[in-house]
Amino acid sequence: MSEWFETLNGLHDRMWQRLSRGVADHKSPSRQPTLATVRDGWPEARTIVLRAADRDTATLEVYTDLQSDKIASLRDAPRGALHVWEDKKRLQIRLQCAVTILTSDTVRDRWDRMPDTGRLSYGVTPQPGAPLTDALAYDKAPDFERFAVLRCAIQTIDLVHLGDDHRRAAFTRADGWQGQWLSP
Amino acid sequence: MSEWFETLNGLHDRMWQRLSRGVADHKSPSRQPTLATVRDGWPEARTIVLRAADRDTATLEVYTDLQSDKIASLRDAPRGALHVWEDKKRLQIRLQCAVTILTSDTVRDRWDRMPDTGRLSYGVTPQPGAPLTDALAYDKAPDFERFAVLRCAIQTIDLVHLGDDHRRAAFTRADGWQGQWLSP
Repeated sequence: MSEWFETLNGLHDRMWQRLSRGVADHKSPSRQPTLATVRDGWPEARTIVLRAADRDTATLEVYTDLQSDKIASLRDAPRGALHVWEDKKRLQIRLQCAVTILTSDTVRDRWDRMPDTGRLSYGVTPQPGAPLTDALAYDKAPDFERFAVLRCAIQTIDLVHLGDDHRRAAFTRADGWQGQWLSP
Repeated sequence: MSEWFETLNGLHDRMWQRLSRGVADHKSPSRQPTLATVRDGWPEARTIVLRAADRDTATLEVYTDLQSDKIASLRDAPRGALHVWEDKKRLQIRLQCAVTILTSDTVRDRWDRMPDTGRLSYGVTPQPGAPLTDALAYDKAPDFERFAVLRCAIQTIDLVHLGDDHRRAAFTRADGWQGQWLSP
């Protein structure tokens, strides 16, 4: 009986288990990946909240304000890198995704399911990143027109398990996720 | 008496305190930022270890293997974004840095100070990312010629404190780090 990190399937399964856990559990490391994007040739990185993870289509969902810097970056280059460090599992998850920005009627169902406090994250005035004369000189009011879902279609997965020995594997959509060991 | 997150100076001070703590304390969130880079127009992100933080010059240091994908990215675009989420402080630290790759005699002092176990991270064969037929079909041997220091000169700082109210501020090298409140 091998450990989960000793086989390609074991690593791949564990990754999806952790991402699903992140969607469901506010305390899970996979709840809050770092999302990196590119704007004007510069990398940008920020914490996001993982809202959905679907293994069948290998897609993830993240919510954001249509006027956030994430959106500006993704309109520049519709590509995102997601990063999670699962400390207890000693597992680093790195994903590269093609990102589609969904708005309006296609995301109405997510909005309808969201509590009022959650909706406050979409619609700050002035828009995110605008200079303020005072730290609190902004207003929050839910605005469905500002609500966007980032649909992240995973293209490549790079997993590293830091155990007594280190193991690293890559999985690609193009290869049907069969997996390949890599030098760590 | 204001809280640290209520003033621009307070936020800036706290950031440097956390980064310094990260250098010294293996358990600190700032010990292991996420480093995002760009390669062929794609963002990449991975965990790194913060090795030095100098407020006077606003520079950070990270160590890596000269044959890692980080180096390939940084030769493509010598720009990095560093990201830390300081959970207990409810502080997100986002940094954009111009990155210089240092090797050879200029980094001999860091190598000399490193324990043997640390040196094993520089010199895996085959090189990091190379395909393997078996997960453990690699060898580690310290190789000073493979040791690189990434000198990260911070250009912009973006801090977000998630408190009862959210506060966000930007600081730039060009402005002498005086700071500017932003809409969160």
